Amino acid sequence: MRTPCGSTAPPPLAGDEARRRADLLKALADPVRLQLLSVIEESDGHEACVCDMTDRVDVAQPTVSHHLKVLVEAGLLHRERRGSWAWFRLDTARLAEIRAFLPG
Amino acid sequence: MRTPCGSTAPPPLAGDEARRRADLLKALADPVRLQLLSVIEESDGHEACVCDMTDRVDVAQPTVSHHLKVLVEAGLLHRERRGSWAWFRLDTARLAEIRAFLPG
Repeated sequence: MRTPCGSTAPPPLAGDEARRRADLLKALADPVRLQLLSVIEESDGHEACVCDMTDRVDVAQPTVSHHLKVLVEAGLLHRERRGSWAWFRLDTARLAEIRAFLPG
Repeated sequence: MRTPCGSTAPPPLAGDEARRRADLLKALADPVRLQLLSVIEESDGHEACVCDMTDRVDVAQPTVSHHLKVLVEAGLLHRERRGSWAWFRLDTARLAEIRAFLPG
């Protein structure tokens, strides 16, 4: 397809897929969520207990729980209950998918 | 550091750096901006004219210009004027940086 300036360009990414990708990036695009993910990534076995997160970021426990829920719902974290505590680990496949669809 | 549940976890990403990374991800986290980036990525020479974008996404030209401005200000695109038209190309170093700091 030729455009007024003389260049050619392909059709864009489909709208539905663009919205799905934007939702994944929105789940990542928060400073506290990036801090929580960094704690999990750097922890032994790449997993961390909710009590670790609450100690390490400068927000109250209900806010930590809210951000962890957003990350689980986006498919970026897995949640598992062990005794009294909830533990979280990265969904490395989902994160690899994001890395792969980024342009450039 | 040992926490109540018995796990150990490192300190998180610093707040300033977390905010900088979140701002980069927010610039990416929009369906129209992902479509515009896909047009540029798939175009000859990985660059595209503003007229290409306007033809290929389902929003009006001022909205396209707004989204391109957000991407330029975030350092994700370079803008160059050629005659009557503005051309855009990806900042591949900035996109590689995002890919590198994603967890997982």
